[in-house]
Amino acid sequence: MSTIALNPNPEENPRVKAVFDDIRATRKTDFVNNMWRALAFDATLLENTWAEVKEVMATPSSLDPLTKEMIYIAVSVANSCSYCIHSHTAAAKAKGMTSEQHAELLTIISLAAKTNHLANGLQLPLDSVFDANSVAQA
Amino acid sequence: MSTIALNPNPEENPRVKAVFDDIRATRKTDFVNNMWRALAFDATLLENTWAEVKEVMATPSSLDPLTKEMIYIAVSVANSCSYCIHSHTAAAKAKGMTSEQHAELLTIISLAAKTNHLANGLQLPLDSVFDANSVAQA
Amino acid sequence: MSTIALNPNPEENPRVKAVFDDIRATRKTDFVNNMWRALAFDATLLENTWAEVKEVMATPSSLDPLTKEMIYIAVSVANSCSYCIHSHTAAAKAKGMTSEQHAELLTIISLAAKTNHLANGLQLPLDSVFDANSVAQA
Amino acid sequence: MSTIALNPNPEENPRVKAVFDDIRATRKTDFVNNMWRALAFDATLLENTWAEVKEVMATPSSLDPLTKEMIYIAVSVANSCSYCIHSHTAAAKAKGMTSEQHAELLTIISLAAKTNHLANGLQLPLDSVFDANSVAQA
Amino acid sequence: MSTIALNPNPEENPRVKAVFDDIRATRKTDFVNNMWRALAFDATLLENTWAEVKEVMATPSSLDPLTKEMIYIAVSVANSCSYCIHSHTAAAKAKGMTSEQHAELLTIISLAAKTNHLANGLQLPLDSVFDANSVAQA
Amino acid sequence: MSTIALNPNPEENPRVKAVFDDIRATRKTDFVNNMWRALAFDATLLENTWAEVKEVMATPSSLDPLTKEMIYIAVSVANSCSYCIHSHTAAAKAKGMTSEQHAELLTIISLAAKTNHLANGLQLPLDSVFDANSVAQA
Repeated sequence: MSTIALNPNPEENPRVKAVFDDIRATRKTDFVNNMWRALAFDATLLENTWAEVKEVMATPSSLDPLTKEMIYIAVSVANSCSYCIHSHTAAAKAKGMTSEQHAELLTIISLAAKTNHLANGLQLPLDSVFDANSVAQA
Repeated sequence: MSTIALNPNPEENPRVKAVFDDIRATRKTDFVNNMWRALAFDATLLENTWAEVKEVMATPSSLDPLTKEMIYIAVSVANSCSYCIHSHTAAAKAKGMTSEQHAELLTIISLAAKTNHLANGLQLPLDSVFDANSVAQA
Repeated sequence: MSTIALNPNPEENPRVKAVFDDIRATRKTDFVNNMWRALAFDATLLENTWAEVKEVMATPSSLDPLTKEMIYIAVSVANSCSYCIHSHTAAAKAKGMTSEQHAELLTIISLAAKTNHLANGLQLPLDSVFDANSVAQA
Repeated sequence: MSTIALNPNPEENPRVKAVFDDIRATRKTDFVNNMWRALAFDATLLENTWAEVKEVMATPSSLDPLTKEMIYIAVSVANSCSYCIHSHTAAAKAKGMTSEQHAELLTIISLAAKTNHLANGLQLPLDSVFDANSVAQA
Repeated sequence: MSTIALNPNPEENPRVKAVFDDIRATRKTDFVNNMWRALAFDATLLENTWAEVKEVMATPSSLDPLTKEMIYIAVSVANSCSYCIHSHTAAAKAKGMTSEQHAELLTIISLAAKTNHLANGLQLPLDSVFDANSVAQA
Repeated sequence: MSTIALNPNPEENPRVKAVFDDIRATRKTDFVNNMWRALAFDATLLENTWAEVKEVMATPSSLDPLTKEMIYIAVSVANSCSYCIHSHTAAAKAKGMTSEQHAELLTIISLAAKTNHLANGLQLPLDSVFDANSVAQA
């Protein structure tokens, strides 16, 4: 059950087919998950979203692929996005996340949430040493 | 301005002093930030929170210290905790986060938020391949 | 599965029946969705909630009905309320939201979420030109 | 700095004056806080909001006044509403919340946030015993 | 469907069995819900989480057990944790929450959310009387 | 106070200058707000963010410019992004949002938040009529 009807034959649209082909080639699998099948209802939205995800998550950069997935999971848990938690946890495991690392990831996420709520409840004044501008001038 | 009065001499309480001393020794600095000064209004809450933060964030584990800070920042941004974003960004920089990595961290966090909202707006059905139970049995 | 038991015959309570009748008359349909069936466990909560929703959403005002539904969807997505996203997307379509407008709505919501997280991550200082008080005095 | 200009003389509007007078009478103080001063830009929004807050928070009910304030604080912390956390913590103290109870409130809020994030990260299947419908039929 | 595979025989691990036995003894029931069965994938995470929940929620303190559950529910609703809302509503009912109190709890939670969004939308300046530091010095 | 140091002369970087010039030309004003000044610490992040905001918010489309700003505000309030609430409320006023429309926008946002929390607290089962797939097949 979704808010847009899933098109059973989305690749009849050549723009959709081009994106799906690139997803398959980039990920080296024939499987295309529901995120992209649903976005196919609007080819522009599909193209732009995939281009950005591919650029950020599938291009070598200053952070390694597994770290990037764990950061993605952390945001998705805090934003309570069930689909995203499932899909990116699967992706992190595919990129080598061990059970020990998974437990530690959940431990950090939940501790951060705990202290986020403590700090918000206390309404803490900022310490001046945190100011990036003062550090930059020093 | 905070929701509890900051005690100007919290270390008159020996339980508070013991925690502050351990913070200073663990972090190798005399500086104790406002989070701990505010929590000092309740020695038990202070002791328990510090013990957990020290155990999770300052003990060698399966994730490196900078990765842990970046995960912490990701959760804090999604939960809109201003104090936590400031304090953990400062901590990440102290642990070596470069300007390039900072930009990439913000890029991933904001992309995750974007697709979290897309997936929630679409109310995507889960793909069965994401089920950890089926994978475990395979 | 819900946190309160759904009463199979809620309209045996005349206060509930009166609200359901008004829902049917206002919406010109016999269908009463689960939100109201569940709220029927407490007649006061049901009456107050319906009165407010009817006043805000079903009374002519300075914003047109479709715009109001799209604003409702935007909040519901950001708050991750699955039921609300489904019910108000259905309502927006009933009020004429096209597929193109739906795609654009999701594009704006997800871009806003992206820049919300960027701005929170950067902890931007406010520009003084944003101050409604200074504008009002000018 | 706010998104609407604060009117320095809001009580020149008799509808606003009537609400402010009722706030003062209900709370037994001459002080009217900024929430109401800002809402005064639209008399209908002011009247409706105050009527609801008065009905829910200042009328004897099945929950005692301090418990109601603590529930209000819990929601406000989770929603990261700085103003609300300040105003309702002040209200809870005025209604007798002790420092020990304040510490315990923050402890529960932050533990709930921690397990919320754990449960969301694990994407736990619901236990059938939680179903209010099955309990009601038993 | 969850992000970790549920072990059908978690109590073969003696550390897990010890926690499950303590859950059963503390709650006076043979039933162990999915939260603990899922956390069993990492014995340390299971032990630490249970120890904290037991300490905060099952130990006599300055707040009564039902009040504590209602605060827990409030946070879980605001954080949109479906599992937590179900489990803690069931717990609150087991501790005596009446239907009237349940309705009132939902009324307060939803009113708080409403005014949280109003206050955030208005970006209200803080009233100086809310400052705990000035109160403490008075 | 921000998490990155604001460069006093960002336009010494020609890529930054090109973006700032396009912001000025698009908005027909010399003023460049802090969002862009802060993002200038990473030219790629600045370029990509501005390109997307310009494409979505400043290009004629199926929704009018004021509606788009109000949707943006709704998301920003729910995500508690103070900077975004200020900047987009100012933008909406510049695009003609009246005081009456502003009050109505806040009324809808806060009502949506209220029913989001009610629906999440009740954990409502979805009505089958909301399924876009069944509608599409009908």
